[in-house]
Amino acid sequence: MNAKQTIVALSTPSGSGALGVIRLSGPEAVDIANSVFKGKDLRKQATHTLHFGLIMDGEAILDEVVIGIFLAPKSYTKENVIEISCHGSSYIIQRIISLLIENGARAAKPGEFTLQAFLNGAFDLSKAEAVADLIASNSRASHDVAMQQMRGGFANELQGLREQLVHFASMIELELDFAEEDVEFANREQLRELILKINQVITKLISSFELGNVIKNGIPIVIAGKPNVGKSTLLNSLLNEERAIVSDIAGTTRDTIEDEINIEGVIFRFIDTAGIRETADLIEAKGVERTLEKMKQAKLIIYMTEANQDFSDISEQVEGLDKQDIPYIVLVNKAELLNDQQKEQLQELPVHFMSAKEHIGVDELKESLLEAVDVSGIDTNETILTNIRHVEALRSTETALNRVLENIDNPITSDFLAMDIKQALHYLGEIVGEVTTDDLLENIFSKFCIGK
Amino acid sequence: MNAKQTIVALSTPSGSGALGVIRLSGPEAVDIANSVFKGKDLRKQATHTLHFGLIMDGEAILDEVVIGIFLAPKSYTKENVIEISCHGSSYIIQRIISLLIENGARAAKPGEFTLQAFLNGAFDLSKAEAVADLIASNSRASHDVAMQQMRGGFANELQGLREQLVHFASMIELELDFAEEDVEFANREQLRELILKINQVITKLISSFELGNVIKNGIPIVIAGKPNVGKSTLLNSLLNEERAIVSDIAGTTRDTIEDEINIEGVIFRFIDTAGIRETADLIEAKGVERTLEKMKQAKLIIYMTEANQDFSDISEQVEGLDKQDIPYIVLVNKAELLNDQQKEQLQELPVHFMSAKEHIGVDELKESLLEAVDVSGIDTNETILTNIRHVEALRSTETALNRVLENIDNPITSDFLAMDIKQALHYLGEIVGEVTTDDLLENIFSKFCIGK
Repeated sequence: MNAKQTIVALSTPSGSGALGVIRLSGPEAVDIANSVFKGKDLRKQATHTLHFGLIMDGEAILDEVVIGIFLAPKSYTKENVIEISCHGSSYIIQRIISLLIENGARAAKPGEFTLQAFLNGAFDLSKAEAVADLIASNSRASHDVAMQQMRGGFANELQGLREQLVHFASMIELELDFAEEDVEFANREQLRELILKINQVITKLISSFELGNVIKNGIPIVIAGKPNVGKSTLLNSLLNEERAIVSDIAGTTRDTIEDEINIEGVIFRFIDTAGIRETADLIEAKGVERTLEKMKQAKLIIYMTEANQDFSDISEQVEGLDKQDIPYIVLVNKAELLNDQQKEQLQELPVHFMSAKEHIGVDELKESLLEAVDVSGIDTNETILTNIRHVEALRSTETALNRVLENIDNPITSDFLAMDIKQALHYLGEIVGEVTTDDLLENIFSKFCIGK
Repeated sequence: MNAKQTIVALSTPSGSGALGVIRLSGPEAVDIANSVFKGKDLRKQATHTLHFGLIMDGEAILDEVVIGIFLAPKSYTKENVIEISCHGSSYIIQRIISLLIENGARAAKPGEFTLQAFLNGAFDLSKAEAVADLIASNSRASHDVAMQQMRGGFANELQGLREQLVHFASMIELELDFAEEDVEFANREQLRELILKINQVITKLISSFELGNVIKNGIPIVIAGKPNVGKSTLLNSLLNEERAIVSDIAGTTRDTIEDEINIEGVIFRFIDTAGIRETADLIEAKGVERTLEKMKQAKLIIYMTEANQDFSDISEQVEGLDKQDIPYIVLVNKAELLNDQQKEQLQELPVHFMSAKEHIGVDELKESLLEAVDVSGIDTNETILTNIRHVEALRSTETALNRVLENIDNPITSDFLAMDIKQALHYLGEIVGEVTTDDLLENIFSKFCIGK
């Protein structure tokens, strides 16, 4: 990517709204904006000022806009940045962006503004990643974790330890220079202590990832069961709105419909499924296939049935669930219709009763969901990893450091020692972006939305 | 609505994006924003300036934001306006808006910012309506018409004539004061000329509405035909993307799917329909019903069939279309398979050949669509009405003015004359908002998006 070119993108969501904000960043940002703007001369305006005027395509007025100016280095990217706040019509937005491109800007790639900010030293890589997480955050928990990471977070936690490790690395290098003389500049005992300390931090961080992952992506819950026992209705009760098509015809739900519900600041992702049954319907058969696929990813399966069904084969049905090694609960809908014999049959199963249509038992179900998944770590203010890239870098760091520990007392292996410490530093450096490759950056920023 | 209260809303589309912009307007806008902002004291900053800082919920950081300040009267609403540009997470946006409401703001109703601007005299009512049209504009034609109206448009065109009419109204009032003396202050001949001139303008404006309406709402085209002749595939060819579910199973398309395609700056709204046939499927039966409903609204019906079908009963089928008094064309898909006998059968129908799957004949079809609907008025730079409210007000004006013309030479009816002129002025005044009622305003602004 050429840092010298000015990039442009819509920074607000597409779709209709009152406003859209188009962002330009780069050395020509002010000139390009000025060339299509009828109002004050933007080139003569101070940073952090706002200007009303018209966007002109030749003689034609494209829109009335407000332009915000951020001059380098006092901007998000540390380059000149222009923000054009226009009417939120996709037609207008597309016309303005085309016009800016005709006048010398280039369409920005996903995350390219944040990439520029990183390349210009505005923040480290883990903070750049937190920006994307922050935008994607959809619950108190995911927001808090992303914000902590953006404000420094675990990068700061590692930084001090990393600097001490750098010191040891240079001491050992020095030993290698004086190899003939058998001196020991790096105190092996202190090095060991440091590594144990780093490994302790790393272990704690890695083990936080399981929680971090569910915070970030939501906790997947599959709703399964025979056709037409009220799965869509349950989903609607949980969501308090009509999302899935509810109909009296068995097999109405063809696609798996995913919906999220926020219970006490934690996101649960509910997956309604095509009723599992033998079916001759081609389209529906695809749905059943996807159901089995989804089940494997679940943290909990809600097996739904209803009181007016025959429960004689229910143990057999849930046996399949037992095999999957995923926790499940059996949820009996229309519980008011249960007779004594049925109750007995259900006795040995992890069973809940409810009436989805009448919204009875829904709150109890929510409580069970919170219990079923341990989310107690969320409120402890501890650093929580949510990024698999960080976990992998930390694992590699740990492996390298363990090799250091193995060889630490062996004087013949000083050069291995130096190599392994360097490797550990390399992996730690990847997290904050002190060590980067084009592939790594490409991989990280391509997941951003365009305009950030 | 209480003009003294500060209102708040998200002004950018909801959904995930890099940025979201939250707007506050009202006397307390700066104070309320300042109470949750950690950075410079916003109360001490100049208008049209931008400030980086943190939004704090107590001790917790909610987001890093940039705040723009517009002080009254130099703002959209002519009140103090604050724009908070935050990260585009719906979670963050909702938290910030809640926080601002806790601190004294009130959630804005749809269009309330623009309503305030109108009430504070920033622009007339027809311009306020044009703002909504501009946001909704999705083609060159609809954009140009909305922009013309927003920049003054036909309101200016009427204003001069209206002022002359006001003059006559006061002259005739004066005659009534001197009724005993039989004087004539208002020159009847000049009044007649003025009214004829006004009526001419009104007639032209009203007749522009038919075009204005299709520009604004798109030209509805129904794609009909027996099940499984490639209607969804045609739609996809026209749209160049996979939108409808295409499957080999007859009756896959249950809902009418509407999609828009921009042909030379004009929007055509294509309506794919559930195949019309007798059906026992409950859900699909609903689809067929909706198809017939949609057909009645169409400007053109494309009756689709394919070459491997039996054409012996095709005249019978299109007879139904003839009865509807809506122009139609018969589109024969898989045309490469046609035999001579079939060609003969089709000879007398308005027929097009194509192969939707291979994208043959699609461009020719687009041309026919442009021909089928006369859109030649779009490029003439004439004022085009797009708003049914304006049309109705103009019709009422015309009726009142025609009554004036009838009575103009009858000296006994001077008081009727005065009344009818006043009535005409009333209706003209409704267009620009010089005459308003709460109901009228409610009706107009409730159609706006929230945040504008």
